[in-house]
Amino acid sequence: MPDTLISVDLSRPATENENLHNRWHPDIPIAVWVEPGADFLVETVDWTGGAIKNDDSADDIRDVDLSTVHYLSGPIGVKGAEPGDLLVVDILDAGPLKGHEWGFNGFFAKKNGGGFLTDHFPLAQKSVWNFDGMFTRSRHIPGVSFGGLIHPGLIGTLPSKAMLETWNARELGLIATNPTRVPPLANPPFAKTAHLGRLKGEAKEKVAAEGARTVPPREHGGNCDIKDLSRGSKIYFPVYVPGAGLSMGDMHFSQGDGEITFCGAIEMFGAWLHIKVELIKEGMSKYGIKNPIFKPSPITPNYKDYLIFEGISVDEEGKQYYLDANVAYRQACLNAIEYLKKFGYSGAQAYSILGTAPVQGHFSGVVDIPNSCATLWIPTEIFDFDINPSAAGPTKYLDGSIDMPIAQDV
Amino acid sequence: MPDTLISVDLSRPATENENLHNRWHPDIPIAVWVEPGADFLVETVDWTGGAIKNDDSADDIRDVDLSTVHYLSGPIGVKGAEPGDLLVVDILDAGPLKGHEWGFNGFFAKKNGGGFLTDHFPLAQKSVWNFDGMFTRSRHIPGVSFGGLIHPGLIGTLPSKAMLETWNARELGLIATNPTRVPPLANPPFAKTAHLGRLKGEAKEKVAAEGARTVPPREHGGNCDIKDLSRGSKIYFPVYVPGAGLSMGDMHFSQGDGEITFCGAIEMFGAWLHIKVELIKEGMSKYGIKNPIFKPSPITPNYKDYLIFEGISVDEEGKQYYLDANVAYRQACLNAIEYLKKFGYSGAQAYSILGTAPVQGHFSGVVDIPNSCATLWIPTEIFDFDINPSAAGPTKYLDGSIDMPIAQDV
Amino acid sequence: MPDTLISVDLSRPATENENLHNRWHPDIPIAVWVEPGADFLVETVDWTGGAIKNDDSADDIRDVDLSTVHYLSGPIGVKGAEPGDLLVVDILDAGPLKGHEWGFNGFFAKKNGGGFLTDHFPLAQKSVWNFDGMFTRSRHIPGVSFGGLIHPGLIGTLPSKAMLETWNARELGLIATNPTRVPPLANPPFAKTAHLGRLKGEAKEKVAAEGARTVPPREHGGNCDIKDLSRGSKIYFPVYVPGAGLSMGDMHFSQGDGEITFCGAIEMFGAWLHIKVELIKEGMSKYGIKNPIFKPSPITPNYKDYLIFEGISVDEEGKQYYLDANVAYRQACLNAIEYLKKFGYSGAQAYSILGTAPVQGHFSGVVDIPNSCATLWIPTEIFDFDINPSAAGPTKYLDGSIDMPIAQDV
Amino acid sequence: MPDTLISVDLSRPATENENLHNRWHPDIPIAVWVEPGADFLVETVDWTGGAIKNDDSADDIRDVDLSTVHYLSGPIGVKGAEPGDLLVVDILDAGPLKGHEWGFNGFFAKKNGGGFLTDHFPLAQKSVWNFDGMFTRSRHIPGVSFGGLIHPGLIGTLPSKAMLETWNARELGLIATNPTRVPPLANPPFAKTAHLGRLKGEAKEKVAAEGARTVPPREHGGNCDIKDLSRGSKIYFPVYVPGAGLSMGDMHFSQGDGEITFCGAIEMFGAWLHIKVELIKEGMSKYGIKNPIFKPSPITPNYKDYLIFEGISVDEEGKQYYLDANVAYRQACLNAIEYLKKFGYSGAQAYSILGTAPVQGHFSGVVDIPNSCATLWIPTEIFDFDINPSAAGPTKYLDGSIDMPIAQDV
Repeated sequence: MPDTLISVDLSRPATENENLHNRWHPDIPIAVWVEPGADFLVETVDWTGGAIKNDDSADDIRDVDLSTVHYLSGPIGVKGAEPGDLLVVDILDAGPLKGHEWGFNGFFAKKNGGGFLTDHFPLAQKSVWNFDGMFTRSRHIPGVSFGGLIHPGLIGTLPSKAMLETWNARELGLIATNPTRVPPLANPPFAKTAHLGRLKGEAKEKVAAEGARTVPPREHGGNCDIKDLSRGSKIYFPVYVPGAGLSMGDMHFSQGDGEITFCGAIEMFGAWLHIKVELIKEGMSKYGIKNPIFKPSPITPNYKDYLIFEGISVDEEGKQYYLDANVAYRQACLNAIEYLKKFGYSGAQAYSILGTAPVQGHFSGVVDIPNSCATLWIPTEIFDFDINPSAAGPTKYLDGSIDMPIAQDV
Repeated sequence: MPDTLISVDLSRPATENENLHNRWHPDIPIAVWVEPGADFLVETVDWTGGAIKNDDSADDIRDVDLSTVHYLSGPIGVKGAEPGDLLVVDILDAGPLKGHEWGFNGFFAKKNGGGFLTDHFPLAQKSVWNFDGMFTRSRHIPGVSFGGLIHPGLIGTLPSKAMLETWNARELGLIATNPTRVPPLANPPFAKTAHLGRLKGEAKEKVAAEGARTVPPREHGGNCDIKDLSRGSKIYFPVYVPGAGLSMGDMHFSQGDGEITFCGAIEMFGAWLHIKVELIKEGMSKYGIKNPIFKPSPITPNYKDYLIFEGISVDEEGKQYYLDANVAYRQACLNAIEYLKKFGYSGAQAYSILGTAPVQGHFSGVVDIPNSCATLWIPTEIFDFDINPSAAGPTKYLDGSIDMPIAQDV
Repeated sequence: MPDTLISVDLSRPATENENLHNRWHPDIPIAVWVEPGADFLVETVDWTGGAIKNDDSADDIRDVDLSTVHYLSGPIGVKGAEPGDLLVVDILDAGPLKGHEWGFNGFFAKKNGGGFLTDHFPLAQKSVWNFDGMFTRSRHIPGVSFGGLIHPGLIGTLPSKAMLETWNARELGLIATNPTRVPPLANPPFAKTAHLGRLKGEAKEKVAAEGARTVPPREHGGNCDIKDLSRGSKIYFPVYVPGAGLSMGDMHFSQGDGEITFCGAIEMFGAWLHIKVELIKEGMSKYGIKNPIFKPSPITPNYKDYLIFEGISVDEEGKQYYLDANVAYRQACLNAIEYLKKFGYSGAQAYSILGTAPVQGHFSGVVDIPNSCATLWIPTEIFDFDINPSAAGPTKYLDGSIDMPIAQDV
Repeated sequence: MPDTLISVDLSRPATENENLHNRWHPDIPIAVWVEPGADFLVETVDWTGGAIKNDDSADDIRDVDLSTVHYLSGPIGVKGAEPGDLLVVDILDAGPLKGHEWGFNGFFAKKNGGGFLTDHFPLAQKSVWNFDGMFTRSRHIPGVSFGGLIHPGLIGTLPSKAMLETWNARELGLIATNPTRVPPLANPPFAKTAHLGRLKGEAKEKVAAEGARTVPPREHGGNCDIKDLSRGSKIYFPVYVPGAGLSMGDMHFSQGDGEITFCGAIEMFGAWLHIKVELIKEGMSKYGIKNPIFKPSPITPNYKDYLIFEGISVDEEGKQYYLDANVAYRQACLNAIEYLKKFGYSGAQAYSILGTAPVQGHFSGVVDIPNSCATLWIPTEIFDFDINPSAAGPTKYLDGSIDMPIAQDV
């Protein structure tokens, strides 16, 4: 049995765990070192560090302090890794921590982070998903169940000093274009809630002031939220610092392409990963790598019968955009939600299904001026009833008696 | 054997064929009427109406007159179809016209239409693809071959007068924001090269002046360029006019998600479709349909081993964008091109592979401010050699002696 | 467009076509020679040479003269092929001849050939299947439709003289153990109905007297009836004679594993194949090849949701057999038929579905004395209704008003 | 977290565990009762109860006492289950017990059980497989690794008294036809090594004398060794006694179709299952069920590129059999072994790969007298090197320095 290199205690605050951190910085101390070729276990807390409960209120979603996320396990140092190498990571397996077989999905309030459809769903809502072995189901969203494609929403290597400076410069530049926007354009470094492993005192203060926030995906991987980085996949990460410094967290039991609900996928309350690491020396230049590349798992859900929704870059008010894939994908999502409502789902439930189920989102056409065309693929097999169109029209399978908890803004 | 309702003669100008048209307008005469439940054959010309040759020069790509596209076969009227219905179209099969088992792919010059990566590939280039039964290979791009996923790039129903006015208003509004842009933001109605079936004289002049151009996808379907609308798929189209008026063309032997090369996928010189039509009465309101929905074919290429490239919304100059999925997908494409070049491909060849092969493009993360994350999935099985990363580094399988024809701007 | 090397005229007797033959013998003249690397088209007649009609009577099935089968197109000589080589055959594509988009399935009378379940279905029956593009449906078996996996039931190379003698010796030896059995244990050479290409006179008489019958699969391939030798597959055949001598026919639009109905799969009335041939010199010894090997097509139906029936080697009378996989598979088939009858199918209809649809048959356990365990996999997606078990029990979707034609013995 | 209803202690003899049994009999006491709808965990020992070690000797395989197998966990009683019902079992998940992430595969000596190819491999041999998360690899068989498709080789319900009598009668009848055969035709009841849960004294003696052995699959399921009864699958079992009495064991990490090596698949030293049970009242008659039926998991390895070997019912001595699928499958296996030896594997290693990897075995043609045609499908992706045929011929990737332990008969 492989060793557990990083453990978590879900009954204690994440900030007390010296093997967790919630910022990116080259000076975060390596938590543990391994040899290339090693395989080992890593435990993780949920991205909020335990702020969200398995209950029927969305108040915790509304009130979450987003400056604290994401609590990551690591960094793990790989001996011999040098800048310019590729760190090859096999996710050999992953699962929930025993006794914690559940996760949550939610939409943040528009005032506190929002989401892809925040104009349509401006209030905090939550759904809780129980794991039945390989499958999941939510007491807040009847009639749907699916196999999990467990993956880290966030996994990446430590940035170099130069890389960190690039990140901070470009993101602060963007924020400066509209610094009071709600939700904000990006998140600047924020020292107060930084947690940096075992770093203390002055050293911590310096890193806390500079450390990049963990929300966006960047050149090192990070919060890519790619549902296909699932157990069985193999990822090739750029290395920027000696030892690489691999950290991971934000474990998802399942997610739809885009993680449109933002909070987030099905966020696992506690999870473990079985990881193997190897190196390709000078792999970045050998293969011309700027961002991570990866290979999907050979073991994935075989959902095959999809109902596919198109969206174009004309928004719901009829406004024409120029080849804007975001607008197109948003329309495809809204079209799917309207469709699912015909079977009895509330809009929030349909939105949550798109954020959690193994839904695909494709760039279908990106050049046909002025309309980008995006497609959203819903596997029909995940529903307890038939959602295909027919001459008879849809049947309302759900009576509306069950809905997702909602929290009014305060 | 089903009847061939619309035939084409590839040796004669598309403009002489009264069952073709290249604009959208409710007054384009129905070419032929069928009963619901009917199945039949439709032949099509390539989208340019024969302007591109099976040769080794890209001059024709450079010189194409984009005001003439797309030549569509139809409209086909379905008896009993009324506004508000859904027209259910089964693409029962499709293939090349006998003796014309080839297609082309190209990039337009930036001066004449461009493409997704036009800043990197500003000149016209072309590759020609031969069809070997279900498979295709190009003499201009060695080392790659794949099964076709034949589909109409363009298929849709006639707009109503109100719908047409909406289209023209919103697109002219966009053009007005930057009317001299090259390439343009959108294409306004253009009477001179309009071809409108058997319409002649004054009636033609009126429709030509108002008819919407065929380049963008819109609510009726149209030029969606969705690679998965392949033979075996089933599509549900909104109906806006009595009889629905179904037209189709722009047949692709294969395409990558996004059709990033714009000209286009593997454009079939001549093709046929076997189509079946049915109706769901009042289906638009029953199912809340605004854009077409569809179900994929049960018979598709089983490529499963992908190499996946990530891109984020920071452009190649390092500029930070806010959740811009287009920028992210462009970066994923550029990352893939750099990678393929390590095996000996020219950039143009790699770009053409992304435009033609059954490559997937996913919206992977769309909410992690400020970076959208897009992924580009290349099936590794399509190459004659192993493109996976390894500790040994890449092998240059190609010596650069073969490249795609290029045409200098004039 | 590739050349059509062998054409058929479906309005004339197969015996008049000098590019067809219905026996295996090294002295059957090569019909046409090709170079290695060539690709070309071959047309075929149905295996009976046109004896079965597209009508609603099973008399033709009852009365067929099985000494005349199978009419094969070929032999095609490949220049440079020598004994010991491997002939690599790509089935680039295949389809029905234009105007003949139909096929038949049937059970022979027990008196005239029988089938896998002949004790349960002792009389001749027939179903006719129409092809709707890539899909098929039978007017004799409502409620089921599926995509075709077109393949030659029979394809192989000419035997050498020594190989032919081995075949005849071992099969005559088997017949000798029970020469009067009905149906027979095997078919000996039978000169009267032999058709041997352009061979005439004395030369023909000699070959007719010795030529092996085409029913069994043998070392050269032959009548393997493997549903997965479908378009897109690649087959490696042993070569026994100079030029290899490749012949093919018995084209199936679709078949279930085992071809249990014997007459047979969905037998295409007229078909074409697009073939490419290459050589691996001395491939038989290089790879230790005795029987053909092959690789499946990358393009196949994606049916994924199966209902699976088990059978063990205890027969329907309760008799115990020792690890007899045939008995086990027969029980799995009978179990599936009983199940399908609960939804309203007649036994004959259910049997025909198992013979024609893309049903899988697996050797699941072959060592657990004394019971072999076989499984039969039925894709649930091929039915117009839900055949899954539920607490509510099955619904009779069919009222029994439609059944397959049957022919009483005479 | 679901409760663990049955635990095992791998450090103690299986015979001391009152929740295990190794015979089938209606009077074996129900170990634990659950309600319909319950889900729970069950732990299992390996089928031999710990007789085989994780070492490099095959002596334990040679010396195993086959009268002791299989140690099953159960029976689990489901309240309200009555004869004639269907017991619906969801295998929600399964895995190795912590600290025991390994399994074994072996061939019994011909003198002690043998296997499908025992005439070619008459001596005991063993390979040990380590589990790396979802994947496995053996130190005795280099160059091959694959994802697990974990499943119970044996799972079934308790027989009624009448059913038990039927089993014993038919199997004793078979044994009587050749009572001294080695290996035997079947295994009669054998009291001495019977372990029957908490049954003691006279009650135990009676049951031990009558209890059916666990080796063969039967009407109740039992030792079906179906590789596709994997985690995520749903099985419908006949119920013969009040409470159904579900037992399970013989957990496999992976198996090839047929489990041809007999000892067995990759036999997990210790494992757990997460099970859910429900009832379909009177389901046996509603659906005409004699043997279990099941639906496969939606989550399975996506191996797609197969190399397929044909075999016909002519044995390796050239003897002709009449439509004998066993002989045909054996030939396909032998053909595959000869092929793999060309890449450097020993025959034993190749045999072991066929027994352990997710290899498919199909009944391809079962009616073409006199030759049955079977196919063996090997996924090419499981090898570290390319096993496809090529003009260049095979490369010996393995130098023969590593082989499987072998034990001489004593």
